[in-house]
Amino acid sequence: MSEFMDKAAITGVGTTEFSKNSGRSELQLSCEASLAAIKDAGLVPADIDGIVKYDMDSTEEVALQRNLGIPDLNFYAQQGYGGNGSCAVIQTAAMAVACGMAKHVLVFRGLNERSSTRFGTDVVGAGGGGTYATNLDYYMPYGLFVPAMFCSFQVNRYFHEFGVDREKLGWVAITQRKHAMKNPTARFTEELTWDDYLNSRWIVRPTFRLFDCCVETDGAAAVVISRADLAKDLPNTPALIHGAAIATGPENEFSTSYYREKIWDSCEQRLMAEKIHNQTGLTAKDYDVAELYDAFAIQIPFSLESFGFCDVGESFDYIADGRIEVGGEIPVNTHGGHLSDAYLHGQTHIIEAVKQLRGTANAQVNNAETALVTGGGNSALVLRKG
Amino acid sequence: MSEFMDKAAITGVGTTEFSKNSGRSELQLSCEASLAAIKDAGLVPADIDGIVKYDMDSTEEVALQRNLGIPDLNFYAQQGYGGNGSCAVIQTAAMAVACGMAKHVLVFRGLNERSSTRFGTDVVGAGGGGTYATNLDYYMPYGLFVPAMFCSFQVNRYFHEFGVDREKLGWVAITQRKHAMKNPTARFTEELTWDDYLNSRWIVRPTFRLFDCCVETDGAAAVVISRADLAKDLPNTPALIHGAAIATGPENEFSTSYYREKIWDSCEQRLMAEKIHNQTGLTAKDYDVAELYDAFAIQIPFSLESFGFCDVGESFDYIADGRIEVGGEIPVNTHGGHLSDAYLHGQTHIIEAVKQLRGTANAQVNNAETALVTGGGNSALVLRKG
Repeated sequence: MSEFMDKAAITGVGTTEFSKNSGRSELQLSCEASLAAIKDAGLVPADIDGIVKYDMDSTEEVALQRNLGIPDLNFYAQQGYGGNGSCAVIQTAAMAVACGMAKHVLVFRGLNERSSTRFGTDVVGAGGGGTYATNLDYYMPYGLFVPAMFCSFQVNRYFHEFGVDREKLGWVAITQRKHAMKNPTARFTEELTWDDYLNSRWIVRPTFRLFDCCVETDGAAAVVISRADLAKDLPNTPALIHGAAIATGPENEFSTSYYREKIWDSCEQRLMAEKIHNQTGLTAKDYDVAELYDAFAIQIPFSLESFGFCDVGESFDYIADGRIEVGGEIPVNTHGGHLSDAYLHGQTHIIEAVKQLRGTANAQVNNAETALVTGGGNSALVLRKG
Repeated sequence: MSEFMDKAAITGVGTTEFSKNSGRSELQLSCEASLAAIKDAGLVPADIDGIVKYDMDSTEEVALQRNLGIPDLNFYAQQGYGGNGSCAVIQTAAMAVACGMAKHVLVFRGLNERSSTRFGTDVVGAGGGGTYATNLDYYMPYGLFVPAMFCSFQVNRYFHEFGVDREKLGWVAITQRKHAMKNPTARFTEELTWDDYLNSRWIVRPTFRLFDCCVETDGAAAVVISRADLAKDLPNTPALIHGAAIATGPENEFSTSYYREKIWDSCEQRLMAEKIHNQTGLTAKDYDVAELYDAFAIQIPFSLESFGFCDVGESFDYIADGRIEVGGEIPVNTHGGHLSDAYLHGQTHIIEAVKQLRGTANAQVNNAETALVTGGGNSALVLRKG
């Protein structure tokens, strides 16, 4: 992987405020976050020569380019599968840099997800008649409209298979809220007690309570990925892109598969962990901090198992007793994650990892030098302090 | 560019038949073309570990993966802007290979463009409310629904600016039909006379006659991009990806801009030519064959000017008298191009370039070793016989 490893670095990060109603367009939000990230990198828009976006983002690459006043692009690309591609967008940007195709690539995600179209409220005709829509045609007649509903099958079978105490999942929401309480820009910063958690309403019974689900947010986040040799002359400590992996696994549909022999097993995550560990020579014990994708709380224990922090079936015990808190064995989602900070399809996790490596996080992990970031079940990054 | 140049090669190509009504789904077409390309490369589906698609293709990467029985993907990505990204999809696949992220990446485009939704017949709501739709909001109230209409402003101003003889544009359609007459799988293989051309109906007056426009087609095309060191052991002469470039230019909208000072000037093409020539050290005289994107005939003279085959304003004279025919100075669209062969958003141009370098084209250019391919105005490739 010498063609890729440490050839690119994250040099700038930026966000807008996070809210229930931004009062402006997604394009506007994306421009604001991008300008913040470019400024943070010590650059100006004319330095940017590449843009990578989420396919589902409403802002085209050239629209962002035009509105920021970037004169020309040497590279553009997109990644699919929403938050599952949140590390893949960074990987593709880093590839463009590593191949010498671009010097400074901008990645962004802008959403009025709370005040405009919420996931699950506009599913008729979703996917424009393509293969995504065809998949939905098999789910929707049974009342399964949104990811929380699809995903609950997997989770419920996991509960059954390993006889876990379901309520222990509360450790995720409660720990992440503790982190968010130190993060003044998080959507939710008040304490979340065990009583609050256990009394919260069901979203999908018996798998997801309210606090197990991400907080749909209006806002935008952006990241600048630069050539590592150029990053040295920029103001921030670079977050080197040390490793990156994508996996889909067999029979993939909706980023995982509900038709595998073991429905509880998100094997694409294990494949991804295997790839990134082969690539970097690292294992779970080498990570100082982990920013793990959490559209739903359950993704934290699943990721911890997949990346070898604990054995399969043991994660509900592992996440207890402060082990995933700052100061614990492996601090997870130190900004509050999607559950308390904001849900912008994973870019905020990447930004938090960068802040941890810079030593400027609100809930800072001592001497954080190596960070694991996951993007749903399909993409992952290892970032290293440059 | 040592990190990219000649690190990847096209090892397999495949298409379905081209028709007015395929009678099957776009997914099915894409699977068929992909299997043909994989077989042509001397591989089996399990060898494929990456997929890059057009964002507007109705088939998701994982849907193709699932239906072909590919066990896992190490890379996936998308490119926007339709045919303007037709070389960019190959570039992104080649980057994944060059970076060591994948060994054999599949690129595909499957369309029921003739029998299903034709461009311009379903523009209401196009772009899903994003920045693309916003652009259309400025055009559609004036009756400008489709690219031929937008583009005609640029072309008309060019006619005025350089005082060209408009009818000379017929050389493109007539020459490409000559090539298609040797290509048994082309949509149109009967002779096209000057009388036919000059008597054909206007699509947009005075810029585009019927034969100046691409032939909307049902069908699919696929290409396999492999690590160059692995390509050596595969059955076909590899088509090395020697250079690749993307450009958007300032104020880009709809892949070009109609708001620049010189409306006739598609400066993104010149930028792209400059980049690829700096990268490879080649100039126009080094190309043995050119497969140039031709949604409309006018793109041929514009591209020839941009890449330095002739001076600006002189291309209408340049394309005359057999200069772009096989045997001429620079054979262009030796398969018949989008005007006579099929319109699958540029993948057929890439496939034809590969066949030329293999020496297996229907209208073969003697000793073709270096090919230029363009994808609209925004992406280009240089392929070299391996």
